[in-house]
Amino acid sequence: MTQIIPPSTIQTFTPKGGPANGRKALPLLRKALERLGLDGFLVPHEDEYNNEYVPASADRLAWVTGFTGSAGAAIVMRDRAAVFTDGRYTLQVRAQVDGELFSFEGFPEPGLAGWIAANGRKGEVIGYDARLHSPDAIARIEAAAARAGVHMRIVDPNPVDTIWADRPPAPRAKINPHPVTLAGRSVEEKLDQIAKIIQEAGADAAVLTDPVSVAWILNLRGHDVACAPIGLGRAIIRSDGSIHGFFDPEKQVSDVYPVGGNKISIEPEDSFDSALTGFAGKTVMVDPAIASAHVFNQLEKGGATVKRAPDPVALPRAIKNAVEIEGSRRAHIRDGAAMVRFLHWLDTEAQSGNEDEISAAVKLETIRRALPDFRDISFETISGAGPNGALPHYRVSTETVRKISPGTLYLVDSGGQYPDGTTDITRTVPIGEPDAEMRRAFTLVLKGHIALARIRFPEGTTGSQLDALARQPLWMAGMDYDHGTGHGVGSYLSVHEGPGRIAKAPNTIALKPGMIFSNEPGFYKTGHWGIRIETLQVVTPPEDLPGGERPMMGFETLTLAPIHTGLLDMSLMSAEDRDWLNIYHAAVLEKVGPLVADERQVHAWLTSACKPV
Amino acid sequence: MTQIIPPSTIQTFTPKGGPANGRKALPLLRKALERLGLDGFLVPHEDEYNNEYVPASADRLAWVTGFTGSAGAAIVMRDRAAVFTDGRYTLQVRAQVDGELFSFEGFPEPGLAGWIAANGRKGEVIGYDARLHSPDAIARIEAAAARAGVHMRIVDPNPVDTIWADRPPAPRAKINPHPVTLAGRSVEEKLDQIAKIIQEAGADAAVLTDPVSVAWILNLRGHDVACAPIGLGRAIIRSDGSIHGFFDPEKQVSDVYPVGGNKISIEPEDSFDSALTGFAGKTVMVDPAIASAHVFNQLEKGGATVKRAPDPVALPRAIKNAVEIEGSRRAHIRDGAAMVRFLHWLDTEAQSGNEDEISAAVKLETIRRALPDFRDISFETISGAGPNGALPHYRVSTETVRKISPGTLYLVDSGGQYPDGTTDITRTVPIGEPDAEMRRAFTLVLKGHIALARIRFPEGTTGSQLDALARQPLWMAGMDYDHGTGHGVGSYLSVHEGPGRIAKAPNTIALKPGMIFSNEPGFYKTGHWGIRIETLQVVTPPEDLPGGERPMMGFETLTLAPIHTGLLDMSLMSAEDRDWLNIYHAAVLEKVGPLVADERQVHAWLTSACKPV
Repeated sequence: MTQIIPPSTIQTFTPKGGPANGRKALPLLRKALERLGLDGFLVPHEDEYNNEYVPASADRLAWVTGFTGSAGAAIVMRDRAAVFTDGRYTLQVRAQVDGELFSFEGFPEPGLAGWIAANGRKGEVIGYDARLHSPDAIARIEAAAARAGVHMRIVDPNPVDTIWADRPPAPRAKINPHPVTLAGRSVEEKLDQIAKIIQEAGADAAVLTDPVSVAWILNLRGHDVACAPIGLGRAIIRSDGSIHGFFDPEKQVSDVYPVGGNKISIEPEDSFDSALTGFAGKTVMVDPAIASAHVFNQLEKGGATVKRAPDPVALPRAIKNAVEIEGSRRAHIRDGAAMVRFLHWLDTEAQSGNEDEISAAVKLETIRRALPDFRDISFETISGAGPNGALPHYRVSTETVRKISPGTLYLVDSGGQYPDGTTDITRTVPIGEPDAEMRRAFTLVLKGHIALARIRFPEGTTGSQLDALARQPLWMAGMDYDHGTGHGVGSYLSVHEGPGRIAKAPNTIALKPGMIFSNEPGFYKTGHWGIRIETLQVVTPPEDLPGGERPMMGFETLTLAPIHTGLLDMSLMSAEDRDWLNIYHAAVLEKVGPLVADERQVHAWLTSACKPV
Repeated sequence: MTQIIPPSTIQTFTPKGGPANGRKALPLLRKALERLGLDGFLVPHEDEYNNEYVPASADRLAWVTGFTGSAGAAIVMRDRAAVFTDGRYTLQVRAQVDGELFSFEGFPEPGLAGWIAANGRKGEVIGYDARLHSPDAIARIEAAAARAGVHMRIVDPNPVDTIWADRPPAPRAKINPHPVTLAGRSVEEKLDQIAKIIQEAGADAAVLTDPVSVAWILNLRGHDVACAPIGLGRAIIRSDGSIHGFFDPEKQVSDVYPVGGNKISIEPEDSFDSALTGFAGKTVMVDPAIASAHVFNQLEKGGATVKRAPDPVALPRAIKNAVEIEGSRRAHIRDGAAMVRFLHWLDTEAQSGNEDEISAAVKLETIRRALPDFRDISFETISGAGPNGALPHYRVSTETVRKISPGTLYLVDSGGQYPDGTTDITRTVPIGEPDAEMRRAFTLVLKGHIALARIRFPEGTTGSQLDALARQPLWMAGMDYDHGTGHGVGSYLSVHEGPGRIAKAPNTIALKPGMIFSNEPGFYKTGHWGIRIETLQVVTPPEDLPGGERPMMGFETLTLAPIHTGLLDMSLMSAEDRDWLNIYHAAVLEKVGPLVADERQVHAWLTSACKPV
């Protein structure tokens, strides 16, 4: 096993961003625009790596506007400015951004392109950093700008970086090998597989711009961003199975792989740009959903034919091998013990009404950090009491924190990063005596959860096809939830992973044995409380069923922690629902029980929480 | 109501096509190729209108090869030939086509393009009729041909037409108005709606090449093809809401609308080609999934900008108005009476073992033809006893006909065309005593059918999202069916209608109140028997549910005929399943009962068939 990384500190709950940011940054940025002869500049949330968790040094949108949501953009003109967010952030953006300085706009509609089409003035010149936008986004923006008579110009370096005096340093943590005993497959095996995909696409090479893909293919893990154990870097794989990795030398990847090696070679990250221009006459695969316009521009500048194609690593990475699945099972048993200790605490001490969303999140993280092989939390804990639980993407801060008071529900969505697996679990518990409405809603959510956990399906089935099964009990009652039912989960990688997804939106990726998905239906009573029940489950291979004629795949539940039976409305539970829940709880008790056997009260609580209903 | 069309004769059951066709046609076609300086020629199944039901005069594929399936193609070279069919027709094509003359190939892979890439020889010239291929198909073929060094050439007229001595005449039936009392909306209202769609797309005009769209927009019905009440013709709508219809003058559309009219003008069909060249500098919408490469070529020749967009009529046509829905309800009551008489006959006389698939189909059609306002069957009856019922798209012929013998199941899928609505219903009945396996499979199919009939769903939901609900009970038992769950149904138009669909394949069309879909899960035990239960159901508007917080749409079942309770395995039926079936049967008895009240035995049987379970 790789070296043990000392756990960093517990997550913070201080408010982030805020209107002061924009008030300070806007005049500076406008002066810079003047110097550059620009009338405006685009500031997207995305960073150079299209990271899910943007490092502080690349959160330009927060620095310029004060908005800290996970998606959005701004446009700063000399005399006006706008910030763009989607429906999730309607309230948050108004709290974090000064409405005197910025107008509030929708995203993706009108988005930057729509805004420029409607508000751009003939002759204006608007700059952008080609490293921060996808080629498709830029094409839409260019077309809109042309209609408005606006000229778009690439600006390099990014003027925000130039004026950002107190910019945090870019992360440069050491990158370590992820041993094959945990990865399950050697880099050589992986390279051969990806080389075949490149050959079959008729290409000569593929550019990997997603650091998660780079981590997977090279069996490396790092600490450059919060929650995901990745080191930032790039790679180019050739159809002969050789790979060039591009990393900041301070990350010491050259300790793992040789500089100038034959099959695997490590190079300084600042040579990546020029490497892209070295494919004259060759066909190079790039994923337009991940790579920036800059990567496309560089390749084309060098005379390469760019082939738009999905990241060739994404699908192989999603299909976990036997070692990774076994690792995930182990990690979930340990993580389950932490959850059991925490749920016991919630069901006893925290019933007092003296705890709050922050103390609970700290309690849970403290328990997790004491686990063997704990590396990090896998995302910021969603700790929501009462009405805050009704905000599916809630982040508790010292400004929003609520007491966990009797007479309501408490929702906690959390996870851990372990070398053998990544976890993600949501449980909802009653504080005090739940009322009939809570029990009805909880049971309907659970019925959807069980339907998806039990489902069998033939080869070729996609997550889009399964999504409605988890919603059916809610739909029949005039209820629904406005988020996906399941996302892919990495193996000691990002907790949100493509390309498959269980959601309303069409997705053409067939589920394959070894893919890990969350199963997380919910219901949110705005202003009152929220319910979500989430477990991770791995797709099982096709098998024959009694009396059946077609082998069927299914799911094995990985997450192991009690689902609160005090919230059940038994009149809504079918015999099949009861059977599933009882078998699940028996497995929780059997697998997690031994880890808490020495904690008498916890074990007694677990035994009771797992009693058949 | 429009003039009554005398019912034509009952459907025929003679075998169609056969190897003699190819033996006769191939030498003639090859001589024609020689005269034209061609090395080969493409013969697709599609006709000039991309009709679902190709008139005999346009079934070139059947004439050239002997294959009569509903999809496929052939390529005839001077020294070799191939016929292409999909998985449904693997057996049929081998029976109908001479394997000495044609090789058997897959479709869509390798298809014509793949075959040419693999088998084309450098320098060969292959001809095609641009009226019979979509522009996308031709683009794929051209690219494959270029790789093989083959040259593709448009040939006009089609050499098959030139050598086809005994070609039946093209249909030229009189086209009649479909009165607004049945259509629910005037042509003027429809034109205003479509003009808005054209304007919103930024186009100046739209070409309608689908005769079903032409029939809908002009409130016309005809008799040019079997089963669908359409007259063949084309139309061009301009963004100002004016329309030009192009019809063979013998169809007498000029009796309905004026030649050279202001808003609506009728022109001879042979002026359509030149009309397409009259859009210099204009943007014209064309649906590349429906229109031929020839239409694209003509528009481009005339200097138009072609905008690829879905047929603007397709979605409005799918959303039935209140008059059409009420008409469908009425048509289904009458059609239900026919089904009840037939199902009574099946449950009594036909239990003798003396009937067969043809006599049953004739019996059913004879009963339907006696109904008031019967116009035509809506497709060739699928009448399948025992193993033939396991072929989902079975067509009985004198060569394949089987006795309806005790100890098996009989499946019948049929429908009628009435001026007020189109019907499509499948029922499966036991002949003799059904065994436990039949009852289990039937009940699982019914459970899926009920789940889809009962489902509530929020706005924005697509048919792809609902498909798995109908499969879930089968999947859980290791079973499935290899066809869609539901297709759209026209209003006295084609029984198969887009753009929505309830199927595994992704479909992004949101269900809208007024859309009519079939609900037809099935199970097929190859070599033994088949089960399918099909009703039509119309999407209902969003309504509030007790205890719910979001208005939900749903389905109202239109089809009214008993589902055989003798095939139920009650141990598999939930309370909800039973409730649905009992309420459905009560509605059947209430609405259809009065129509058979004078037929004592039929009414007594219906009462018994609708008894609560």
